[in-house]
Amino acid sequence: MGNISTAINAKQFLAATRLLVDTELDQLIPKETDDPARLHGAIRWSVFAGGKRFRPALVLAVGGTFSAATDQLLRTACAFEMIHTYSLIHDDLPSMDDDDLRRGRPTCHIKFGEATAILAGDALQALAFQTIAADETLSTEIRVRIIAELSRAAGTPSGMVSGQARDLDGESRTVDAAALDQIHLQKTGALICGAARCGATIGGANDDELEAVTGYGRNLGMLFQITDDLLDVTASASAMGKTPGKDARASKATYPAVHGIDATRRQIDAVRQSASGAAKSINRPAELLISIVDLIADRES
Amino acid sequence: MGNISTAINAKQFLAATRLLVDTELDQLIPKETDDPARLHGAIRWSVFAGGKRFRPALVLAVGGTFSAATDQLLRTACAFEMIHTYSLIHDDLPSMDDDDLRRGRPTCHIKFGEATAILAGDALQALAFQTIAADETLSTEIRVRIIAELSRAAGTPSGMVSGQARDLDGESRTVDAAALDQIHLQKTGALICGAARCGATIGGANDDELEAVTGYGRNLGMLFQITDDLLDVTASASAMGKTPGKDARASKATYPAVHGIDATRRQIDAVRQSASGAAKSINRPAELLISIVDLIADRES
Repeated sequence: MGNISTAINAKQFLAATRLLVDTELDQLIPKETDDPARLHGAIRWSVFAGGKRFRPALVLAVGGTFSAATDQLLRTACAFEMIHTYSLIHDDLPSMDDDDLRRGRPTCHIKFGEATAILAGDALQALAFQTIAADETLSTEIRVRIIAELSRAAGTPSGMVSGQARDLDGESRTVDAAALDQIHLQKTGALICGAARCGATIGGANDDELEAVTGYGRNLGMLFQITDDLLDVTASASAMGKTPGKDARASKATYPAVHGIDATRRQIDAVRQSASGAAKSINRPAELLISIVDLIADRES
Repeated sequence: MGNISTAINAKQFLAATRLLVDTELDQLIPKETDDPARLHGAIRWSVFAGGKRFRPALVLAVGGTFSAATDQLLRTACAFEMIHTYSLIHDDLPSMDDDDLRRGRPTCHIKFGEATAILAGDALQALAFQTIAADETLSTEIRVRIIAELSRAAGTPSGMVSGQARDLDGESRTVDAAALDQIHLQKTGALICGAARCGATIGGANDDELEAVTGYGRNLGMLFQITDDLLDVTASASAMGKTPGKDARASKATYPAVHGIDATRRQIDAVRQSASGAAKSINRPAELLISIVDLIADRES
């Protein structure tokens, strides 16, 4: 398999990688006919719920920019999606965000019960690390680096789970601009930045290149979360596939709530420029990476 | 650091490894003064709740039997304890076993709330893999093998989470002897057997030796769970530190429920013999490993 990042349009690239990633995920995840069938059914219900596969696409796009073969990127891409999906399953639980619907379908715990949903998330996290450990297209050195990166991005004190914990704490007290940035950088940004960095690592990026990719990933993660906050205020329910305005009702710390809508739009422009600038500084063909920035900045859902 | 498995008495060995493991866990886990403080407090509440550190001791005992240095075993030992602790936190949740007390103290969700308890478990699982990935006392080849082993033992379709899922399914239907063995082998046995195998792997065991260790670990895991089932029926609350009889009221599939108490005692003897026999077949000094079998078989809590 070659690499598919020569297509420079982000929308086409996401569509193409989604097919690849879905096929690979189907191979990696136990069948729902295999015991324990209910658990595997719950995992598949959430993994194959129509996600955009944005984090896997980022592994593939950045890796491809560094000329890595798609075949070497694909399992790592799937591992990021497994971690992302487990986090959605647990986020939706009654004691967390208490969401009944995601992408217009019942959430995992509504469909399979809370206990099975908790276990489905737990199993997906284990499977993510198992997938990378077993990826024989990568040297053991690279596998260890990817696992270190993914576990840091997923955990605490500076990864996704710590971002969630800070977000929870924020519901009961006032969050200032700096605290909000930290929530966003960790809750959403850590995994997005980690996906970019892992693509670069598999592609053999040197330290300077990895630093440029980190700047790209951090800003792209921030852009993703700020646009998400804004869409929650401005978008229609049908465009979002979920109920808008939910963040405000849950007293979530969001950009519009802390900064206002106009300042949020200006911040989106600034972060967009930073992300594109970081992409250009990588000194590799950066059209696709910039196109991804534009796609996120201009998204309507 | 040398290796501490020359002490052949299992009780002394567990006490000695507990000190080592607790000191290392304290280094590996973020401080509760570090943000997000509530999350880290919840993790530490559950990790330092007075556990026996049985799985870490098994990594150290089997590894020591194969002459591995304690220093090379210690992080892997801690990683197994992190996975074990996360599973206890999630098991205790209201939608799972709904336990308010563990070892005489409030469970994590009672003390810190359900959302934080879910996140604490999630973070501990990530930290387990991060710990092994970062263990520079081990070659990258060994680290990848340990991560593969731990993730398989923790996940699905044949690890701890699938055992939990089978156990849940069993609450709503009759469980026969074969299904019960599978629940026990996965729910408790997978992590115990995995701990033994990882110790052997770090100690450089060859395939035949690893197979003998697997037999030891499987039987020891079974012994651990069957004695646990029996204690739930026969032990006093003060000896157990938790409420006996809880399994029966929760319609849990247990050995006494499926086979009766006399047959359970005979099964304990049989599994004990198998575990000791497997230990002797390793062709290394096996006194400590046999002493561990005896300790579990004769335990009163």
